[in-house]
Amino acid sequence: MAIKVTVWNEDSLAETAEAVRKVHPEGLNGTLAGIFRGNEGFEVRTACLADADAGLSDEMLEDTDVLIWWGHCKHHLVPDEAVTRVQRQVLRGMGLIVLHSGHESKIMQRLLGTQCSLRWHEMNERERLFVVEPAHPIMKGVPPYFELEGEEMYGERFDIPAPDALLAIGWYETGEVFRSACCFNRGYGKLFYFQPGHETLRSYYNENVRKIILNAAAWAARDRSMDRPLHSEFAEPLEAKRG
Amino acid sequence: MAIKVTVWNEDSLAETAEAVRKVHPEGLNGTLAGIFRGNEGFEVRTACLADADAGLSDEMLEDTDVLIWWGHCKHHLVPDEAVTRVQRQVLRGMGLIVLHSGHESKIMQRLLGTQCSLRWHEMNERERLFVVEPAHPIMKGVPPYFELEGEEMYGERFDIPAPDALLAIGWYETGEVFRSACCFNRGYGKLFYFQPGHETLRSYYNENVRKIILNAAAWAARDRSMDRPLHSEFAEPLEAKRG
Amino acid sequence: MAIKVTVWNEDSLAETAEAVRKVHPEGLNGTLAGIFRGNEGFEVRTACLADADAGLSDEMLEDTDVLIWWGHCKHHLVPDEAVTRVQRQVLRGMGLIVLHSGHESKIMQRLLGTQCSLRWHEMNERERLFVVEPAHPIMKGVPPYFELEGEEMYGERFDIPAPDALLAIGWYETGEVFRSACCFNRGYGKLFYFQPGHETLRSYYNENVRKIILNAAAWAARDRSMDRPLHSEFAEPLEAKRG
Amino acid sequence: MAIKVTVWNEDSLAETAEAVRKVHPEGLNGTLAGIFRGNEGFEVRTACLADADAGLSDEMLEDTDVLIWWGHCKHHLVPDEAVTRVQRQVLRGMGLIVLHSGHESKIMQRLLGTQCSLRWHEMNERERLFVVEPAHPIMKGVPPYFELEGEEMYGERFDIPAPDALLAIGWYETGEVFRSACCFNRGYGKLFYFQPGHETLRSYYNENVRKIILNAAAWAARDRSMDRPLHSEFAEPLEAKRG
Repeated sequence: MAIKVTVWNEDSLAETAEAVRKVHPEGLNGTLAGIFRGNEGFEVRTACLADADAGLSDEMLEDTDVLIWWGHCKHHLVPDEAVTRVQRQVLRGMGLIVLHSGHESKIMQRLLGTQCSLRWHEMNERERLFVVEPAHPIMKGVPPYFELEGEEMYGERFDIPAPDALLAIGWYETGEVFRSACCFNRGYGKLFYFQPGHETLRSYYNENVRKIILNAAAWAARDRSMDRPLHSEFAEPLEAKRG
Repeated sequence: MAIKVTVWNEDSLAETAEAVRKVHPEGLNGTLAGIFRGNEGFEVRTACLADADAGLSDEMLEDTDVLIWWGHCKHHLVPDEAVTRVQRQVLRGMGLIVLHSGHESKIMQRLLGTQCSLRWHEMNERERLFVVEPAHPIMKGVPPYFELEGEEMYGERFDIPAPDALLAIGWYETGEVFRSACCFNRGYGKLFYFQPGHETLRSYYNENVRKIILNAAAWAARDRSMDRPLHSEFAEPLEAKRG
Repeated sequence: MAIKVTVWNEDSLAETAEAVRKVHPEGLNGTLAGIFRGNEGFEVRTACLADADAGLSDEMLEDTDVLIWWGHCKHHLVPDEAVTRVQRQVLRGMGLIVLHSGHESKIMQRLLGTQCSLRWHEMNERERLFVVEPAHPIMKGVPPYFELEGEEMYGERFDIPAPDALLAIGWYETGEVFRSACCFNRGYGKLFYFQPGHETLRSYYNENVRKIILNAAAWAARDRSMDRPLHSEFAEPLEAKRG
Repeated sequence: MAIKVTVWNEDSLAETAEAVRKVHPEGLNGTLAGIFRGNEGFEVRTACLADADAGLSDEMLEDTDVLIWWGHCKHHLVPDEAVTRVQRQVLRGMGLIVLHSGHESKIMQRLLGTQCSLRWHEMNERERLFVVEPAHPIMKGVPPYFELEGEEMYGERFDIPAPDALLAIGWYETGEVFRSACCFNRGYGKLFYFQPGHETLRSYYNENVRKIILNAAAWAARDRSMDRPLHSEFAEPLEAKRG
């Protein structure tokens, strides 16, 4: 059965800036959805903030196995109730892949409990990503390291809890490092944060970046057989008290 | 310099039920503060929900190195703004020790991102806690295992992220287990969750429970030399781009 | 392509005691191999200490994706060179599942660096295993908890490094707890330790135990695309020194 | 009571090469011991491979709270029995700080179970270390990042188990990154690996490197109140079987 992927962006195609459209003719949603198109293991659709319910209705989320999140300038415009709906779905088992500037989205902060802040500058500089957990399924088929010709610099300290698995570390030409691929388990769901993807650059066309996003979607996909209550439950004693 | 401990309870002494006062004549705040009194390494005071600013003003928190939290029936009455103040202080370095029924407090959920739900029943049953990380400073001086004659049962699955360190596991007479002592690093601060402490029972008089709470306060105490910004920062390049 | 499983036991069928044969007519190797037989995703064979090269030749290991290990009384008879061969294969990517009394095998100690000691007694008592990471692929399809009518007690403290993932905790009738299902990543390989399986008892016929062993074999299976050097390598500079 | 530190080197002062003596007039042992001299919290002495029992006798180790290890070319000359003695002491609670080229020492491999291999070249290049766990006691007083004017490059993938805490990541001028400060708990003891310290360079005179080594020694120091058996123990039942 195909994994149902929803790619969410803060901008609709109409709202997407010219500089972004030059690189992503169908918007970031189009480029990201393209990673999954033609791959029979996945069904993909897109949503954005301007859609009804911020593009994050219960019905849509309930029908989503993995949500891919790209946002930057409009984090504060995402309604708290929509964030609560997404959080609840993750805790119930939906996978969530947060890309690049989504590090400071409300949903990332909500699931991790920290600010997720970092150091940054935008100089279109060279980045090289080194895989530190090569046996993790998300890194399957990825070489020991690979380069991105231009990226925005995101540097440490990245204010996150220690990830459940740290998969890759980025080196930047201008002298910084970053934990660029991090896995977190939360509730019955999984969160993968992946740093590449400045909107005017071409990282999402890089074959290793694409492979990692595909692998991550397979890794994070919801397992519906594990849909269980999230609230505390009164439990009848399993053994008698001894007195 | 003494570590400044604030013990917070949802109930004032006046609000404390008769059944609780029988065990804790000065309320849970009194019993918990008593763990620190007479120990020259600590200065202790108490606060409660009925106080101004829910007993959690910026001034008080700013002057606190470790906050100890006991709440149960009034989680929903703690104002969100107070929770935000506490979260911010933890991320800036304040220690937080959440006890027993505080597992479902807003502050615990806020810092961990999960529901922190569990299985439970209240049968005043025997619990035995086994130390699994004996070399951790919080377990210094604690024997390999110890017993509590009566506790409320808290059982797995406990809906928390995998702790940064799991220190103890509880066994219950009625057939359940629990990750009863868990450390989490968040921002520049530390969170310790410790399961014992049903309000009508005597766990806080147990010498090992007291030792663990004392050790945890020393471990979690704020280090003011580490007070640093929490927001993302623009960074001038540390090295020139190569072109 | 089927996953190649080799089940290894310290005893050949001829060496297997009468009391064990009553429960395992084809020996523990037969019962464990039976978990995989008839499942088209796996090819299974067996080996034992009495075989040439202690049943652990380079050729056989090289042709194995997951090795399942059951040993108890003959740990000291396994030649160090055989242990070195197995360790090397794990670091290169072979999966290893160590069962029950294998906790103190040389290969477990070699890969973890600790004694892997524990508290024990043998009273054929009730155990109940609670799943603490339900979203892990090894726990797919397993209920929140399940019971084993009789087991040998293995209790904490279990002298292991903190596992990369702790999947289940066991409760014992006689008052102890145990980290009963633990994942460790080592080199390019994966190690899963699973506590059930006293030789005269019926745990390996329990459907949840069988499901966990099957899932673990799929999780740990070697990924040959990741076969990479294990030794340190001289690296030509990826960027010029700046002087 | 002062923490007893023993600094061990593979070379005696007489064996130390001229190029090393230029930087370390009393040898690496002298420079490293100098970090502790004059600090009343520590008592320090030195040992080397040419000493009786490889400088690692049971008596000396038993009287050591933290062992600091610097080796490079003579790893293979350290007798296996000496490695076993050190391992045993670590498991019983002795702290171990492995520096720089000690990453491939037998004792590091023994305690971690992996090859601890890496990528390297020696170009006396600039390194910048970024702290990722600022609240850890080992990083107390250390700025968010600091530079070493010249180091040997050690690059990922570093073949270690995921550390129990990753404290710092190094950036190198020639395009690589490294997990340069890693904590591991093993048995009742603690291991800290710290990457700086090529023998002909001046990293051990850097104030932040010195601070980290001092902090690490305090963190890793043996707690004699926790001296407990390492072997498996028969346990009388803590509760009666129910039948």
